[in-house]
Amino acid sequence: MSWFLEKCKAVDENAKAQAEARQLQLTKPTGSLSELENIAVLLASLQGTARPEIPHPWISIFAGDHGVMEENISAYPQAVTRQMLQNFATGGACISVIAKQYGATLQVVDCGSVGDIYDYQGVERHCIMPGTHNFAKMLAMNEEQCLAALALGKESVEKAFSDHASIFVAGEMGIGNTCSASAVACFLLNENAEKLTGVGTGIRAEQLNHKKNIINNAIQLHSEYVKDDAFKALCAVGGLEIAAMTGAYIRCAQLGMPMVVDGFISSVSALVATRLNPEVRQWMLFGHQSAEYGHVRLLEALGAEAILKLNMRLGEGSGAGAALGVISLACSLHNNMATFAEAAVIGEKV
Amino acid sequence: MSWFLEKCKAVDENAKAQAEARQLQLTKPTGSLSELENIAVLLASLQGTARPEIPHPWISIFAGDHGVMEENISAYPQAVTRQMLQNFATGGACISVIAKQYGATLQVVDCGSVGDIYDYQGVERHCIMPGTHNFAKMLAMNEEQCLAALALGKESVEKAFSDHASIFVAGEMGIGNTCSASAVACFLLNENAEKLTGVGTGIRAEQLNHKKNIINNAIQLHSEYVKDDAFKALCAVGGLEIAAMTGAYIRCAQLGMPMVVDGFISSVSALVATRLNPEVRQWMLFGHQSAEYGHVRLLEALGAEAILKLNMRLGEGSGAGAALGVISLACSLHNNMATFAEAAVIGEKV
Repeated sequence: MSWFLEKCKAVDENAKAQAEARQLQLTKPTGSLSELENIAVLLASLQGTARPEIPHPWISIFAGDHGVMEENISAYPQAVTRQMLQNFATGGACISVIAKQYGATLQVVDCGSVGDIYDYQGVERHCIMPGTHNFAKMLAMNEEQCLAALALGKESVEKAFSDHASIFVAGEMGIGNTCSASAVACFLLNENAEKLTGVGTGIRAEQLNHKKNIINNAIQLHSEYVKDDAFKALCAVGGLEIAAMTGAYIRCAQLGMPMVVDGFISSVSALVATRLNPEVRQWMLFGHQSAEYGHVRLLEALGAEAILKLNMRLGEGSGAGAALGVISLACSLHNNMATFAEAAVIGEKV
Repeated sequence: MSWFLEKCKAVDENAKAQAEARQLQLTKPTGSLSELENIAVLLASLQGTARPEIPHPWISIFAGDHGVMEENISAYPQAVTRQMLQNFATGGACISVIAKQYGATLQVVDCGSVGDIYDYQGVERHCIMPGTHNFAKMLAMNEEQCLAALALGKESVEKAFSDHASIFVAGEMGIGNTCSASAVACFLLNENAEKLTGVGTGIRAEQLNHKKNIINNAIQLHSEYVKDDAFKALCAVGGLEIAAMTGAYIRCAQLGMPMVVDGFISSVSALVATRLNPEVRQWMLFGHQSAEYGHVRLLEALGAEAILKLNMRLGEGSGAGAALGVISLACSLHNNMATFAEAAVIGEKV
């Protein structure tokens, strides 16, 4: 049996009940902190303690290039993937600033980008393949390559786990990856590209139509191979970083590490993860509802409501990273607010 | 001329343009951080610098009791106002935890609560009157009392200003104050109670109908006196803490202090402030869209979109306080992300 089909850790119903009981005793009208209460209670059930906290967040960014870039589906050139890898590591990218803001460890993992061998400090270079194949013409990855990408995600989580990380964020970088993610989502949700394809980094209407055509044609091309198999959908039209995030999410749930899912591309990885191993869903928080068209549909499919709605559409785990602040606040309130008894405040309604 | 009619400080269009130009150079697709970009640019225009920041937030909680509590319009007894004042000061309330989380100074101002003289450490006790009069029967405050309450807000902001605070949050505590706030909003928006009255801390349907009747009758009773005068609406059906927040908001705009408006009650104060002195609006950010029915309508009237939507309905400035985390992150990203030139990333689209 593949590692990613193995059982997930059970959530702690006892810790959840304790956290719920505590929330009822805090000096506020019942339910008045709403989502902040829900976050604290969920995290209690995942961390197995009535007093959840996230002193040590961990953020792993997975990068990969996309063969489908040959089809002119993005607003930016492929070289930007590599350039941004350096920017993550040197601290200038959005997610770098977020990691610093919340005291998170930032790991940068190149799963396979296009270009020469390099040695960037702070970037872990792997080259499963120098970018996927062009899925408009052939499988993006073979199954061995896809398994290797899933394993990279698994290894990141194991590293975070052994480093005593308290919560895991996966982010991605890969010029062209909204095209790949949309195609995967179309397979999983049995939709055509119209419902699940957006402008990504910012293409114009004409190029958007072209992108949708590329995706719809690819669905035709690979449908025989994929059928209803989520893993094969990843192989056919996915990306190395999308597969790595899928592997990371599954490993989080197996080890009992709470995770925050980011936007459109991450949610596609999350959807693949839940199709491969449905119990993974219980370990997920959703950080941000992206402006990328199709994300709302993905959140629906995952039965999820995002913590933040800031209309962002950057990727890099930035929406999930931004939500770390809200999650941290939810924990502080849960742990540090006085109870009615402690504060001698009347808790019952008249 | 009353102090609150005096001119507001002009916002800095030059700093705004510089901040906008900087956003275009940061290593991300144009506009991809959306609300986080908007927050940074707005704050730049208010703080008069291309590099806005909020190292020293200030939170003032204004408390007051309400004579209309005689009419059985709340789920909690009046004594809770006083009890919560102590809880704010001793660090057990939601806003106390939020203030600590974001390094904010927390000032607690009792504008007039019901009960004996007391000396709670950390609570600034004023007693303009021991709670307002019951507006179901008479004016809640006379004009002198209302002016005194406005002045308390003004004084808080002046204190924050001389303490070099970087952003101001006003919060409120006062059992019964959603009833008062709804009545003020009805006068200002020329609506009946149906459109602007919610469950507050959590009354049941029957009591909600009763609350609406109390408000509609009070509008009838005071309409001759109020006519279209926002100040007189405050006097007729407002609260001491609602007036204090109004005074605080106006003084913020006069001194050039950015402010974050909280939920339903704070937004009523904000609406009064903008009616008295329309330029005040430019200095406002809106922290959180409350679950309290009627807040969406108030935000519309103010032309505002809230930063957070966490379904909270606590008051105490908690929604605005929670938004400080997002505002702080927006500043960090604006100031610390690398530009395309610094990171040698291709910024133009292909």
